Amino acid sequence: MNCDKFKDECGVLGIFSKTSRNLSRRVAFGLISLQHRGQESAGIAAYDEGKVRHYKEMGLVQDVFNNDILESLKGTISVGHVRYSTTGESHVSNAQPLVINYRGGSIALTHNGNLVNADKIRDELELSGSIFQTSIDTEVIANLIAKNYSLGFKESILKTVQQIKGAFALVIVCEGKLIGVRDPNGLRPLCIGKLPDGGLVLSSESCALDVVGAELVRDVKNGEMVIIDENGIESITYDDSKRVAHCIFEYVYFARPDSIIDGVSVSSSRRCAGKTLAKEHPVDADIVIAVPDSGIDAAIGFGQESGIPYGIGLIKNKYIGRTFIQPDQESRELAVRLKLNVLKENIKGKRVVVVDDSIVRGTTSRKIVDALKNAGATEVHMRVSSASVKYPCFFGIDTPNRKQLVGSSKSDEEVRELIGADSLGYISVKGLLESVGKTNCDMCTACFDGDYPMDVPEEVDKNMFE
Amino acid sequence: MNCDKFKDECGVLGIFSKTSRNLSRRVAFGLISLQHRGQESAGIAAYDEGKVRHYKEMGLVQDVFNNDILESLKGTISVGHVRYSTTGESHVSNAQPLVINYRGGSIALTHNGNLVNADKIRDELELSGSIFQTSIDTEVIANLIAKNYSLGFKESILKTVQQIKGAFALVIVCEGKLIGVRDPNGLRPLCIGKLPDGGLVLSSESCALDVVGAELVRDVKNGEMVIIDENGIESITYDDSKRVAHCIFEYVYFARPDSIIDGVSVSSSRRCAGKTLAKEHPVDADIVIAVPDSGIDAAIGFGQESGIPYGIGLIKNKYIGRTFIQPDQESRELAVRLKLNVLKENIKGKRVVVVDDSIVRGTTSRKIVDALKNAGATEVHMRVSSASVKYPCFFGIDTPNRKQLVGSSKSDEEVRELIGADSLGYISVKGLLESVGKTNCDMCTACFDGDYPMDVPEEVDKNMFE
Amino acid sequence: MNCDKFKDECGVLGIFSKTSRNLSRRVAFGLISLQHRGQESAGIAAYDEGKVRHYKEMGLVQDVFNNDILESLKGTISVGHVRYSTTGESHVSNAQPLVINYRGGSIALTHNGNLVNADKIRDELELSGSIFQTSIDTEVIANLIAKNYSLGFKESILKTVQQIKGAFALVIVCEGKLIGVRDPNGLRPLCIGKLPDGGLVLSSESCALDVVGAELVRDVKNGEMVIIDENGIESITYDDSKRVAHCIFEYVYFARPDSIIDGVSVSSSRRCAGKTLAKEHPVDADIVIAVPDSGIDAAIGFGQESGIPYGIGLIKNKYIGRTFIQPDQESRELAVRLKLNVLKENIKGKRVVVVDDSIVRGTTSRKIVDALKNAGATEVHMRVSSASVKYPCFFGIDTPNRKQLVGSSKSDEEVRELIGADSLGYISVKGLLESVGKTNCDMCTACFDGDYPMDVPEEVDKNMFE
Amino acid sequence: MNCDKFKDECGVLGIFSKTSRNLSRRVAFGLISLQHRGQESAGIAAYDEGKVRHYKEMGLVQDVFNNDILESLKGTISVGHVRYSTTGESHVSNAQPLVINYRGGSIALTHNGNLVNADKIRDELELSGSIFQTSIDTEVIANLIAKNYSLGFKESILKTVQQIKGAFALVIVCEGKLIGVRDPNGLRPLCIGKLPDGGLVLSSESCALDVVGAELVRDVKNGEMVIIDENGIESITYDDSKRVAHCIFEYVYFARPDSIIDGVSVSSSRRCAGKTLAKEHPVDADIVIAVPDSGIDAAIGFGQESGIPYGIGLIKNKYIGRTFIQPDQESRELAVRLKLNVLKENIKGKRVVVVDDSIVRGTTSRKIVDALKNAGATEVHMRVSSASVKYPCFFGIDTPNRKQLVGSSKSDEEVRELIGADSLGYISVKGLLESVGKTNCDMCTACFDGDYPMDVPEEVDKNMFE
Repeated sequence: MNCDKFKDECGVLGIFSKTSRNLSRRVAFGLISLQHRGQESAGIAAYDEGKVRHYKEMGLVQDVFNNDILESLKGTISVGHVRYSTTGESHVSNAQPLVINYRGGSIALTHNGNLVNADKIRDELELSGSIFQTSIDTEVIANLIAKNYSLGFKESILKTVQQIKGAFALVIVCEGKLIGVRDPNGLRPLCIGKLPDGGLVLSSESCALDVVGAELVRDVKNGEMVIIDENGIESITYDDSKRVAHCIFEYVYFARPDSIIDGVSVSSSRRCAGKTLAKEHPVDADIVIAVPDSGIDAAIGFGQESGIPYGIGLIKNKYIGRTFIQPDQESRELAVRLKLNVLKENIKGKRVVVVDDSIVRGTTSRKIVDALKNAGATEVHMRVSSASVKYPCFFGIDTPNRKQLVGSSKSDEEVRELIGADSLGYISVKGLLESVGKTNCDMCTACFDGDYPMDVPEEVDKNMFE
Repeated sequence: MNCDKFKDECGVLGIFSKTSRNLSRRVAFGLISLQHRGQESAGIAAYDEGKVRHYKEMGLVQDVFNNDILESLKGTISVGHVRYSTTGESHVSNAQPLVINYRGGSIALTHNGNLVNADKIRDELELSGSIFQTSIDTEVIANLIAKNYSLGFKESILKTVQQIKGAFALVIVCEGKLIGVRDPNGLRPLCIGKLPDGGLVLSSESCALDVVGAELVRDVKNGEMVIIDENGIESITYDDSKRVAHCIFEYVYFARPDSIIDGVSVSSSRRCAGKTLAKEHPVDADIVIAVPDSGIDAAIGFGQESGIPYGIGLIKNKYIGRTFIQPDQESRELAVRLKLNVLKENIKGKRVVVVDDSIVRGTTSRKIVDALKNAGATEVHMRVSSASVKYPCFFGIDTPNRKQLVGSSKSDEEVRELIGADSLGYISVKGLLESVGKTNCDMCTACFDGDYPMDVPEEVDKNMFE
Repeated sequence: MNCDKFKDECGVLGIFSKTSRNLSRRVAFGLISLQHRGQESAGIAAYDEGKVRHYKEMGLVQDVFNNDILESLKGTISVGHVRYSTTGESHVSNAQPLVINYRGGSIALTHNGNLVNADKIRDELELSGSIFQTSIDTEVIANLIAKNYSLGFKESILKTVQQIKGAFALVIVCEGKLIGVRDPNGLRPLCIGKLPDGGLVLSSESCALDVVGAELVRDVKNGEMVIIDENGIESITYDDSKRVAHCIFEYVYFARPDSIIDGVSVSSSRRCAGKTLAKEHPVDADIVIAVPDSGIDAAIGFGQESGIPYGIGLIKNKYIGRTFIQPDQESRELAVRLKLNVLKENIKGKRVVVVDDSIVRGTTSRKIVDALKNAGATEVHMRVSSASVKYPCFFGIDTPNRKQLVGSSKSDEEVRELIGADSLGYISVKGLLESVGKTNCDMCTACFDGDYPMDVPEEVDKNMFE
Repeated sequence: MNCDKFKDECGVLGIFSKTSRNLSRRVAFGLISLQHRGQESAGIAAYDEGKVRHYKEMGLVQDVFNNDILESLKGTISVGHVRYSTTGESHVSNAQPLVINYRGGSIALTHNGNLVNADKIRDELELSGSIFQTSIDTEVIANLIAKNYSLGFKESILKTVQQIKGAFALVIVCEGKLIGVRDPNGLRPLCIGKLPDGGLVLSSESCALDVVGAELVRDVKNGEMVIIDENGIESITYDDSKRVAHCIFEYVYFARPDSIIDGVSVSSSRRCAGKTLAKEHPVDADIVIAVPDSGIDAAIGFGQESGIPYGIGLIKNKYIGRTFIQPDQESRELAVRLKLNVLKENIKGKRVVVVDDSIVRGTTSRKIVDALKNAGATEVHMRVSSASVKYPCFFGIDTPNRKQLVGSSKSDEEVRELIGADSLGYISVKGLLESVGKTNCDMCTACFDGDYPMDVPEEVDKNMFE
């Protein structure tokens, strides 16, 4: 059922410590708290006295790592990565960290995001004789750093991040430093935490800071590179010419509710969106329920604002894993109920408001409305805590092409009809921005309005839209 | 963190169909919806034209079964089992269904519960030359049925269930029949469902009926045996002399909220208990939060009754599996945050009511109160939607011995002090019974008051209480 | 290619020590040296202060056991088993040791052989209420011992082995004793070894004694039970009324060449058979080659007697495991060459004598002759170091039914034609017996002449022969 | 016990077909017949309409590949590789084929051998900005090809193989061609085979040709590159200035006896060496035995020449795999007997000649002599079918450093004493060359005499020899 959601592509995490060489275990714990950002592969690299050791494999963090492996990854710097892949390239060679040897020694790179000029750079690099062993953008970045190395590691990374375009939150281990870089628009999140022993942490989300035992210090800024070593944090602003454009969907769906991203609590923003939604699309009803888990905060907010009691209407099975027994003809429709079952007692004879975070293809929404009506709901009012999704993302989010985005080709009324709800209300882009406490000067809302913060590659565009 | 809860021991499921031989796939789906009742081993047996094939293995349903295995388990009757084990005997030989050959052919047994006279019967059987290959009570039941077989299968089962004492919900395949039996007190749950094609289903909980596509017909009654075949259901009351004593903890913690057990919605009973709790132990506070997942319904109820807004305060990591990387000294305390992280934004500076379903040892409660205070809660009021647990269970629930039950040795005020809460309130046994809409004539509340519905074995008692 | 051979069904091994509790590791090593007797499942049970722990799984010894598992199997007695199964019942429940609890405590049984009255006893036991969880004869034996237990363990085992008929070499752990029993005909082998520390060993073959560090003391005699404890070996002759009938095929094919069975070196007997074969079926040729590995000794003997130089003509791939990539249409015939490739250089233009240990279906022989001719052999003379196999075995050897035994339905000349050889010579039964240094008073040669040492079950017979 | 041998590093195999796209299955079969050349990792790449798909993993061919994976590797060209690694770098990233994308598209490389100037080229490439993701020489070769690509694929490969120095047999898929290259000295073997359908095969050894169904056409010559496509074979001699220096150890130990390498049958050369050995070091004895498996041919030859009968004296366990249960203190010495057991019957009271292919450290030889004496051999005469190994190899063979080579630091008499034999005789280099039918103008015998066919890197040299 989750398959009808946008997919994030990665989570990154790095720790620098002056006192401990047992960081990889902490990184593994932290990665488990970032597991929602990518369930396909996991990897950790550790830097120890000039050497970089790493291990990566397909699977969840807990399946990839065990005590023996973590024990073999000692070091004073450790970085980790969880990955979700968008295409058939689910191959361990595409897992991260990417560890390479180059003139400057060994370097480990982890990357969340997507470059819009990766193909162009790759072509240029190939023309000059470079070879590529993976299909990830990170390898392009690694090559650029190596090419620029004569400038020294700091300048070579700075030059590299000025050459690449797109969304990137990078965590790099290089020459005994832990380095974090965020793209000039700040599209993908990256924050800094501090350990009790003075160690420093970089993470996609602050929830991982809690788990590794660090306090949130601040977010890395758009266009900023931070270099962490025993002297603390050196900050370099390498590009302050671009507008801030944090990804709105981190608040809508991707991030964990207990994370604080760019100064805003994800949970609060979602509850706030629920309240706004209640104001923008009021309805008379008996119960407000959520599509678990990502719709819960907004549903609670909707309940609080509207006065309609919040309750549980859909039960999510906690034991549904990734690999699954295929249903046969007879049991296909049962598979839905296996993942999400209606709590009939709470629904029967009631007018129900059901709050979801987004509608992508509409297929799941339809099944949910059906299930609620079958359970005896007299009315089903769908409320969506994001605006209607009309445009694909080029910045590290896996979105279907435009044809499959139901919001792109259909009016809200047509969507309502399609999913069979009695009413349908999306939060407005303005309302959503207010919920996050930001304006469209701070956020990327391109998936709603097509206002991309940079040029989108023509050919991809064409391919996507036709 | 869940380790500080009572543990259920099993879930059972059986389907009889006149039209389909592909039942095992449905049974697998159903077992996944009963997975919360046992995560240690899973098994399915299928009856096909007189033959019984089965497969069982350690692990979750989805790890044990794949399409090939399910394809090999064709048959017009299929029964399945999920098991949680209480001791070191985590061995596949103890997994169920137990499939045996005896004079009457092949028989497959699945059992949820615990016999109080199993050791005594086992001794008698061994005296007469029986051998035992497992350490499960089910093997005792199988031997009795075989011994009694000269009476015919129906009489032999009837005689057997009159010989055994304790808690049992049995689902058996024998001579082309699907048979369900519930113990004379009705301690463990068992319900009957009907498929659209007329097929019949037996299940520990009704949530599995939803998943296999069946409508809930009714519960098997205490002291009732049902025999299902192409003629429908034959009901035999084999013992109506005992008082009804359904397990109260199914409502408190074990069952899924979307199940209806003995006519009562689990979710409703929990919300109702939350309301009663708010009446019995009112408090002035800013937010009501739940210990996820089992405390959520009660917390919502508490909020509704008290008027204190319900919110999210603790985030549970969805990706914590059973096998886990061991934390080292440094990261031991982090492991708690990995499983359950505080959503600080919602807690900071607030007076918090935290609702949990039960307190067993008190260790987890203490960690939760600590974590909430560290996150800035000005007051933490613990409210518990079950009464204080003082006595061990002998009827199929894994409880620590009495010494470890904090409610057994300490007063409520001592427990409050131990866990560090500003106030502590348990629901009363009376209030809990009312929430379930039952009286102490219907329910077993022995874990609260020691009023066991039958004699408890002396030696076990001694062992347990000293 | 090996699939065209008779298959042994089991190897058994047991060690009793006064000084060590680390026996299971030795047993594992010993089982690896018995691995040729069964590659389907492996198991070990250890007796420690009254308790029996065990572990068994499908697979080779080295795949089933690791250091952690062996560490958990401490004890002063340890028994192990490797199994090959004849039918579809390749299920871990049929793996051995069979460990049961009965009135006398715990008992672990391992069994090599086959009972001819198992079904009859099983029926009787079922009539008296026994249940069966496996399809192995060993469970019948376990039930009889339990039934007879009121006599004491020694008498109960004695009574049991007098009730069962057929072939059996049993190694049992019971009441702190290690017990070995060989059937009244001595069909299956079992020998006794002594460790330097005074510990005692029972093994199917003496090659395992070498590996566990024991000296061969003697063979268990037909109709003998030995009871090993801290006082040494107690010997009981429970049946001396039957004629000795050791299995001739242990020398022909099953046993390892470095084993000494019933006083005769397997390797010597094979070389001797090769010499006799050269005398009985002389031929003018340029090279004698073996079908590896079991034909090598006989081929060397043939060369020594005939004066024709022995050489290597067929190379066996050492890396062919049990599970294998299925060949497609195009590559099916290649699969033969993968397992056994002709060393053309030694064959081209030569008259070749190829020595194999037996011909069962003839299919492999035909492929070998073809391959040799394709490689340029001018003549191929097949010499077989066993007599023509005409009758199935009922004593623990997996033989095809009589129709599939090419020697049963075809004359030697017809077989020669079938396999395409220029000449074909089997050793005579008399010659083979002489090679082993025994007479037909000592050996079972029923597979050659149908002279079974006991009544063969009618129904099986019928089924087999029609 | 095998650990006291030189280790080969790789086997390569490639098939080009005009008619079939199911080549990967054949390649897998072929790789199994090359498995003796490397048991650490296995991989296959398939070229299909411009795309290259590949799969590689740690483990034996049969463990790495299954039907599903092979089905996914369709294509008209398929290349495979088996690898043994010399150092700790047992990492899947070092497995082959190495598949890269570069300006010219996709290319798959497999390599057997070792470059002596890889570090130097790697440094130069890194200076120009190249990055390296593995620690294998093959990645250096790939980079060079990419750098040289402006010349076209043919010229770029030609230029590349002129830049690299050392030992290499390359099989490459590139632009729809299957390309084979052998180093200017012809150190590592590579031969060409022809399929019945006109397809062409490249293989390290001809035994794989038999398995894939091809006829041996000829060997690739030293300094030759062959380009195979639908037009057949194009041959280019890119360097004819170097002396031929085929590796003598392919005949001594590495290659399978049924392979023909550079026109000479491996089996014949070994038997011939055994005969020469008998002439050079005659001895009066009762039996000639081999250290299995590689000493068998020479032992047979020794027997034929000397008239001493050849027999079996040591039995090798067929079921000893790579990963193994660790012996504890008590059982450490048993581990030897587990791998290699003495057939006492053939040894007792006899004067034994034991033929081994080489002595590296001498530790295994000592154990074998001890075991034979313990078994009752009155004399043990060690005969070695290679000369005394005194110098390390730099051309793709894993040899210990010079200190550990017993032949380097000790006289033959000292070695004899060390291993405890009654006499010791190595074949002379001259005698060995004659056995292969070659002269020292054709062969590399540097491991015996230090006469390396090219400059050996200074620093490695220093490191090795001190």
